[in-house]
Amino acid sequence: MTTNALTQLLEKMSTGSETALARLMTLVERDGREVGAILEAIAPQLGKAFTIGITGPPGAGKSSVVDCLAALMRKTGKTVGVVAIDPSSPFSGGALLGDRIRMSQHYLDKGVFIRSMATRGSHGGLARATKDVIKLLDASGRDYVMVETVGVGQTELDVMGTTDTVIVILVPEAGDGVQVMKAGLMEIADIFVVNKADRDGAQRMLTELNLMLELKYSGRSPSESAQPQWKIPVLAAQAVNNIGMTELFQAIESHQRFLLETGDLDRRRKARRREELLSRVEYEVRRRLTAKASTDPTLTQLIEAVSEGKVDPHTASAQILESSVLRTGG
Amino acid sequence: MTTNALTQLLEKMSTGSETALARLMTLVERDGREVGAILEAIAPQLGKAFTIGITGPPGAGKSSVVDCLAALMRKTGKTVGVVAIDPSSPFSGGALLGDRIRMSQHYLDKGVFIRSMATRGSHGGLARATKDVIKLLDASGRDYVMVETVGVGQTELDVMGTTDTVIVILVPEAGDGVQVMKAGLMEIADIFVVNKADRDGAQRMLTELNLMLELKYSGRSPSESAQPQWKIPVLAAQAVNNIGMTELFQAIESHQRFLLETGDLDRRRKARRREELLSRVEYEVRRRLTAKASTDPTLTQLIEAVSEGKVDPHTASAQILESSVLRTGG
Repeated sequence: MTTNALTQLLEKMSTGSETALARLMTLVERDGREVGAILEAIAPQLGKAFTIGITGPPGAGKSSVVDCLAALMRKTGKTVGVVAIDPSSPFSGGALLGDRIRMSQHYLDKGVFIRSMATRGSHGGLARATKDVIKLLDASGRDYVMVETVGVGQTELDVMGTTDTVIVILVPEAGDGVQVMKAGLMEIADIFVVNKADRDGAQRMLTELNLMLELKYSGRSPSESAQPQWKIPVLAAQAVNNIGMTELFQAIESHQRFLLETGDLDRRRKARRREELLSRVEYEVRRRLTAKASTDPTLTQLIEAVSEGKVDPHTASAQILESSVLRTGG
Repeated sequence: MTTNALTQLLEKMSTGSETALARLMTLVERDGREVGAILEAIAPQLGKAFTIGITGPPGAGKSSVVDCLAALMRKTGKTVGVVAIDPSSPFSGGALLGDRIRMSQHYLDKGVFIRSMATRGSHGGLARATKDVIKLLDASGRDYVMVETVGVGQTELDVMGTTDTVIVILVPEAGDGVQVMKAGLMEIADIFVVNKADRDGAQRMLTELNLMLELKYSGRSPSESAQPQWKIPVLAAQAVNNIGMTELFQAIESHQRFLLETGDLDRRRKARRREELLSRVEYEVRRRLTAKASTDPTLTQLIEAVSEGKVDPHTASAQILESSVLRTGG
């Protein structure tokens, strides 16, 4: 794509073209040569959207929650972007849930833009692409960007780490508190929702989550306790019946106010950009090495020696970093 | 540690000292300056051990299976190394299962060496440390090295990817086949075990796994089908009662023979060493950048500009790779 065509596309996006936004997302997903120029161009417009991560086990009703929240956000006149990461079947390559009807009530509403991402392929590539797609939604002027992820793998945790507020949705069947801790959900949640709260075990799960949070607070050091602390709410909900959704939206707004008033929003975003830089360098290093593995004779030889077990990866890594092979793009 | 002391330690390890082995593992876990020298020194001795990955959801009985397999391996006169990755509580930092009694029957047997790894901290660090600990066990002359991981996060999948045979252990309560696919277990399993097979739903799970495998085989292209294929066995077991364990050990030996006869062992190990090199470079790049973030003024400024949102990570990443900042250790 020519620089001129790209500039036009970016202009169209900033004046509200959904087609331009979708095309830019595809470019970013493909990780082509335009990505650098796109991200550089949109950088000054970033940081206006408030981003919300929504995660939890499969079947927790995340899509219904996103659906209800989008409706409530639209009622306040705000625009919404949604990024959904779908699981793929590992051997067919097709999206398992690709055929489900998503966000039906919003399909015709211009104020809600929905993008599904495939989880297929990608070693760190999906997390990177998702973060860049969130940026495009931010740059396009969306007030809220919601990111829905299934499960809690490293990619999902990475993506959640880039959002301002993280909502963890559980269902009574999701298992006990120990599972929640093991999955690392305790560390990332700003708001807990126990969905399908009419089912057996919902009350037990609510109690257990509250107990675990008390344990977490009581474990804080005196210096930590002196600072203003966000008290993580545990909400009961039935998203399919639109129960508890107004309370959830209010909790999101409370958290947003808390982040702004304490300066945490700024601190979090700074730490996040720094981490994004490190990931970006790692990602680019792998990309360049893979591209040059077949074109740079010295590198080809070194990789061959490592794969034969003749040179250990640690020594080879030091050699690569001392050489200039990473300095030019592949 | 002096080079001399390190050489002595390595010599002691190769003559069977468990104390030396344990000390080297600690050095490798801490990722100090000695790691390079250690890995370089042991490189010529690697590849003799046959490595077995054992994974599955919490409570599937993985430790009991490892326990039984170790006993069977010892009966054939072979030596055994076990690496167990324990989940940590995200807020106490303590190992949740640290107090369970592990491998009780082998505690006094010199032929079985057991190492528990903490999952705490580490962004990619645990996977790296685990792989290096496996290498030490290999270099120390163990015939079999078993690696037990809880759950199926990216770290666990990474570690499983470095073993020769992967055993996935499920229990009837573990959920349906879709969950197995979503967790990526279908892709990595060489052998399936349905443990606690006396429980309700065991037969259904066995049938379902077999059906999923048939589906997988039938989806193969003609060229794939022409090659000799490993037929993934689905075994029923009750590890605590030592039922099905001999069959499991036989399946492992069959898989080992299959890998040797088809040349797959060599191909897998080559691909693995190559991937290890890429991970190692990524890891070292992050380590150097983090170390230099506070000592290299140009880098400090650039990182600050990125965290303020003034320079986008993509542009900054290109600048870092063009500079010489990565060329020297931090």
